[in-house]
Amino acid sequence: MPDYSALERSLDYQFKQTPLLVQALTHRSFASHNNERLEFLGDGVLNFVIAHMIYQNFPKLDEGEMSRLRALLVKESSLCELALTLNLGDYLILGEGELKSGGWQRPSVLADAVEAIFAAIFLDAGYQAVEKVTQHLFAQRMANINPQSVNKDAKTQLQEHLQARKMPLPLYQVLRTEGEAHQQTFFVECVIPPLNIRTQGHASSRRNAEQMAASLAFDKIQQGKAK
Amino acid sequence: MPDYSALERSLDYQFKQTPLLVQALTHRSFASHNNERLEFLGDGVLNFVIAHMIYQNFPKLDEGEMSRLRALLVKESSLCELALTLNLGDYLILGEGELKSGGWQRPSVLADAVEAIFAAIFLDAGYQAVEKVTQHLFAQRMANINPQSVNKDAKTQLQEHLQARKMPLPLYQVLRTEGEAHQQTFFVECVIPPLNIRTQGHASSRRNAEQMAASLAFDKIQQGKAK
Repeated sequence: MPDYSALERSLDYQFKQTPLLVQALTHRSFASHNNERLEFLGDGVLNFVIAHMIYQNFPKLDEGEMSRLRALLVKESSLCELALTLNLGDYLILGEGELKSGGWQRPSVLADAVEAIFAAIFLDAGYQAVEKVTQHLFAQRMANINPQSVNKDAKTQLQEHLQARKMPLPLYQVLRTEGEAHQQTFFVECVIPPLNIRTQGHASSRRNAEQMAASLAFDKIQQGKAK
Repeated sequence: MPDYSALERSLDYQFKQTPLLVQALTHRSFASHNNERLEFLGDGVLNFVIAHMIYQNFPKLDEGEMSRLRALLVKESSLCELALTLNLGDYLILGEGELKSGGWQRPSVLADAVEAIFAAIFLDAGYQAVEKVTQHLFAQRMANINPQSVNKDAKTQLQEHLQARKMPLPLYQVLRTEGEAHQQTFFVECVIPPLNIRTQGHASSRRNAEQMAASLAFDKIQQGKAK
């Protein structure tokens, strides 16, 4: 069996039943006894522990704001980022096809394994244990959050971010529309020339398509910072 | 303060901090210190405890099946049913307008209060306590579940239900379509004459529109049984 001690140190948790950890790391491409069911359970426990942390840390946020904040913290890209800090790709157990096609670096595979690990800890030692590990792993992310941001739409956030850095405003343009007048889909591009960012959104209204494009552009900026 | 002992007996849980229970019962129409934030937290804990119960009780279900089963158990109509068995309507604290308009019997108001109560128990006494209450309240529902049913689509379920009762099969007909050929919306009706049920579904394919209509018809039958 591989040495999981470095991973356990990063988690600040030592498994009593290592097979649970092994199962959490096993992708469906390798074996039928894999992490898919654990992922379902882990998604549940993670969502709840994060909900509780938000409830405690942000007493002034309303229900909708807490919900958006949680979505931000547990979305695939956030979990994938966490997986990278845990070097989870080195431990994943994948089938040969997945290995060759780079499954160990695919965001969805990494994020699913993170969720499965939370479930494995819960099954290994109960709720308090997984709560402690989650708090440990998410403490910094929680501290970095600006609770105001959950109130703002993507276009506003993007605009404020650029203005604060003395950069020109993003440009939005409708690339094309599809469908009949009463049921159109708008394809909109958001361009930020100085950052070399160009994203596309589509939705049934121009406004929502712009929001989607702005959100993707803002994600790109955040990812750039994380590197 | 009203007497909550009957409610506490139904829950099989006695609050140490009664104000938490009071807050869980308080609708936003009555006060700004209401159950909305608790509802967010309660939704999280309920979803997780139910996920864990499903994980334990149905070792053969896959991730998607467990997810559909959970959705079935925690959907508004299920929580509303639970609220009725707890006589929750008698305890709700509503603003005058809501009282007059019958808010104490509105499904969403009842379901939200149920979720808030789970959060209140969690905050009052921790995870084990709310897990125990949830298991107690959902044991019968969990036992009644046919895990096969999560595999079946709505049309099949509806058909089997009617056949088992020697009733004629439901009739489906396209009422109209909207939109251009490559982006149509189908409006389909499902009719069950002997039950006087007539429902409508719409979707981008005829098949999915029929499924939606069938699902609504099946819901109506289930509601009829619940009365």
